Amino acid sequence: MINIDLNCDMGESFGVYTLGCDAEAMPYVTSINVACGFHASDPATMLKTVRLAKKYGVAIGAHPSFPDLVGFGRRMMAATKEEIFADVVYQIGALWAMCKSEGVKLQHVKVHGAMYNAAEKDMGIATAIAEAIKAVDPDLYMVCLGKSVMVEAAKAVGVKFVEEAFADRAYTAQGNLVSRKQAGAVIHDLNIIAERVLTMVKDKQVTSIDGAVVPISAQTVCVHGDTPGAVAMIKAIRTALEENGVTLKAFGA
Amino acid sequence: MINIDLNCDMGESFGVYTLGCDAEAMPYVTSINVACGFHASDPATMLKTVRLAKKYGVAIGAHPSFPDLVGFGRRMMAATKEEIFADVVYQIGALWAMCKSEGVKLQHVKVHGAMYNAAEKDMGIATAIAEAIKAVDPDLYMVCLGKSVMVEAAKAVGVKFVEEAFADRAYTAQGNLVSRKQAGAVIHDLNIIAERVLTMVKDKQVTSIDGAVVPISAQTVCVHGDTPGAVAMIKAIRTALEENGVTLKAFGA
Amino acid sequence: MINIDLNCDMGESFGVYTLGCDAEAMPYVTSINVACGFHASDPATMLKTVRLAKKYGVAIGAHPSFPDLVGFGRRMMAATKEEIFADVVYQIGALWAMCKSEGVKLQHVKVHGAMYNAAEKDMGIATAIAEAIKAVDPDLYMVCLGKSVMVEAAKAVGVKFVEEAFADRAYTAQGNLVSRKQAGAVIHDLNIIAERVLTMVKDKQVTSIDGAVVPISAQTVCVHGDTPGAVAMIKAIRTALEENGVTLKAFGA
Amino acid sequence: MINIDLNCDMGESFGVYTLGCDAEAMPYVTSINVACGFHASDPATMLKTVRLAKKYGVAIGAHPSFPDLVGFGRRMMAATKEEIFADVVYQIGALWAMCKSEGVKLQHVKVHGAMYNAAEKDMGIATAIAEAIKAVDPDLYMVCLGKSVMVEAAKAVGVKFVEEAFADRAYTAQGNLVSRKQAGAVIHDLNIIAERVLTMVKDKQVTSIDGAVVPISAQTVCVHGDTPGAVAMIKAIRTALEENGVTLKAFGA
Repeated sequence: MINIDLNCDMGESFGVYTLGCDAEAMPYVTSINVACGFHASDPATMLKTVRLAKKYGVAIGAHPSFPDLVGFGRRMMAATKEEIFADVVYQIGALWAMCKSEGVKLQHVKVHGAMYNAAEKDMGIATAIAEAIKAVDPDLYMVCLGKSVMVEAAKAVGVKFVEEAFADRAYTAQGNLVSRKQAGAVIHDLNIIAERVLTMVKDKQVTSIDGAVVPISAQTVCVHGDTPGAVAMIKAIRTALEENGVTLKAFGA
Repeated sequence: MINIDLNCDMGESFGVYTLGCDAEAMPYVTSINVACGFHASDPATMLKTVRLAKKYGVAIGAHPSFPDLVGFGRRMMAATKEEIFADVVYQIGALWAMCKSEGVKLQHVKVHGAMYNAAEKDMGIATAIAEAIKAVDPDLYMVCLGKSVMVEAAKAVGVKFVEEAFADRAYTAQGNLVSRKQAGAVIHDLNIIAERVLTMVKDKQVTSIDGAVVPISAQTVCVHGDTPGAVAMIKAIRTALEENGVTLKAFGA
Repeated sequence: MINIDLNCDMGESFGVYTLGCDAEAMPYVTSINVACGFHASDPATMLKTVRLAKKYGVAIGAHPSFPDLVGFGRRMMAATKEEIFADVVYQIGALWAMCKSEGVKLQHVKVHGAMYNAAEKDMGIATAIAEAIKAVDPDLYMVCLGKSVMVEAAKAVGVKFVEEAFADRAYTAQGNLVSRKQAGAVIHDLNIIAERVLTMVKDKQVTSIDGAVVPISAQTVCVHGDTPGAVAMIKAIRTALEENGVTLKAFGA
Repeated sequence: MINIDLNCDMGESFGVYTLGCDAEAMPYVTSINVACGFHASDPATMLKTVRLAKKYGVAIGAHPSFPDLVGFGRRMMAATKEEIFADVVYQIGALWAMCKSEGVKLQHVKVHGAMYNAAEKDMGIATAIAEAIKAVDPDLYMVCLGKSVMVEAAKAVGVKFVEEAFADRAYTAQGNLVSRKQAGAVIHDLNIIAERVLTMVKDKQVTSIDGAVVPISAQTVCVHGDTPGAVAMIKAIRTALEENGVTLKAFGA
């Protein structure tokens, strides 16, 4: 029997501003990454998001970022390791309290945007993140890009981790994500996406942008829920997996 | 045997900006209220403050505020009860994680500035705060102005609480604080302050600004540590208490 | 010949967040109020909004607010007159520079949200705003709620001003806006709204919520452009005015 | 007759937080760079700083930064050219309005911290800054590190500029600043500093850290006013210059 988790960024609204299709996508995913106020979200939005996840039995993770609300955490910032450690601890705690107030568990931490991209390649940054997670709660999982430096950092620090693959992104023959600046980096065809995820999960491989077979290690697959089209994509992936005997289940469940 | 707690606001620096005499005052207090990033402080400052408190065995509390960094949380904001609840949960969690990462306990929550002044008189606001505290952790104490609406809210919600008195503030015959706008509202003479605190603690009373004897109920006394003169005041209070057989001890210890 | 101005809040997007239908509504209004970063907007959004207004020859005004991004400037804050003065000067200047960089003129200032509501009734606040406007540029108009304290403040300070009426809001017999909390405060029927605006402009009166005839003084009418339905409302108002010989024109043109 | 300008960062306080010795240093400098709210300062602080400069007849410039209050603008951020352009326009405008409200002129723009360091080397960033300055007001000077890419950008864009030298920093034989991470990067001896500035101004040269004679081009010299010791340094420089017949004067006067 094969299990897989589908994780999705949520709680990215802010004040009067609405972003994403949280209510529509929530019933179809198994884990969510909740923004913690540094790149998106605010306390009331976080609480609302935790309540929605609780309603559907979806597992909750923190989605910490650099402090860059106007840039949505997508701009690299030259923060020190100490600043990253403290910023991540702060954001995990804020979401932990939201979960505590609703009587649900915090399952994982997945860093956002520019911090994620930096942690893929920079052992110092990935280590600061892993240490922050472990310091707050050694039962938390760190969500790492499969085969990246983040995995090495998680192992070195001794924090629990899962590897993730991306449902709608092209891979290089080396197993890296194709840069979004390159043509073909994002896949849009629902059937192709569903088929690729199924192959990642059942055969633990994916076909690279130039036709090579690339081994994939993933306990969770990242999907997007920010547009109505994205919700359709999640449903297509879910259907393909379930029809092929894969059980959808949060990795920490 | 009489015990009393001395609580003091700390961790109010921000980025490159330094405020207060945390290092000088820490050895002489028994509990601190740590700013959580909404009116002052930032993650790195919070962590540094928790480490300093740990070094001296001082008990730690969260000091949540309205989100008003430029106004230092001193300006009343017409936030809803839901916003106050969520803002307080968020800030408690952020500091809880700092404590967790250092292996120390979070003892209490004392709200700051304009939120404190509002909670003294407004049962809805005081209740939202009490509910936030209980929702995060029913073992946390709520620090309430003695005999204020905050005490009623804490009782109604069923959250643990302590009452506080102010070391250097004049009281009315009704037991309220004299407004800072009025002459004589703040007392500056160290000997008088030390004497008054001793009377509050041992005799459970204080002399009002117009000479009346006012009953006082306090398990903690608020002192200020933001100037070198304030540190001298704390030492004078501490000496007076100890020389008269009062034990200085965090209320949650 | 009768002229009237239609003013509309714009530039309220922020970072990745989109709010309003600026591109759809811009061709149909004659003046816009651009958020300046305190309750909404950011420098890149302000610049984009100024460019769009320039394309359609729409007059531009600043829309300053209390510093409350998460609350969208809708929460009253106990700021001092000095803080309000400085905050308004700052925000006018920021938008002035955007206009200057595009070679267009800044026409007016209309304060936003809770600051507007406060200035309607509080002479001190309204005066601080009027003084800020005059201090930056005595050629700027202050947009005031018709017959409110804002008009008195503008006169006392000696700043140019226009009075505004609201297209879709019910009025009391005393000429005040009916509170949004009361049933019937907001009118939704396009034909009724268009007819009311026409009467306000041509006959300088409106029928109150309880049937009284109320005199109205307005050189500008506030319309909303934040939903597709709102854009249809603007078009309906514009058509009714033009078909009845009213010229739509910015008040400062 | 030789003129020189001494420029100094000021207005870096924020809310309740005080930074620098503005009141002590103001009488001894000829130009100041005023923080505009992105790395430090707030509207009330900006206004107070402009008033102090006006009192002493000191020329005023804007000191724009990346939006990073907690990091004091010292952390590089991967902002786009469009974001930098808009951020700089916004900040210049905000300070321009403060000057306008006090009836004084805005003389120049000098970018702060990480943005300055980036502009020294990156033609795209330096060009975005130069274009922002010119777009707001072609009479504004851009303060550039002598002989850096900033000078090339100012020339290419056609904005007025001055070159600056640093009073207390060591130079390499190539005329660059020695990195602060290297020993000897910052000079502390007042007599040596005063002597070096005199040589920079009168002989247009400086001795490098390894003993070479380096040609210097500077119409303004940057001094620091953030500590009592720094104020003494400014006085020492000023005295040395005046005793040797150099006139201290803002470059735009």
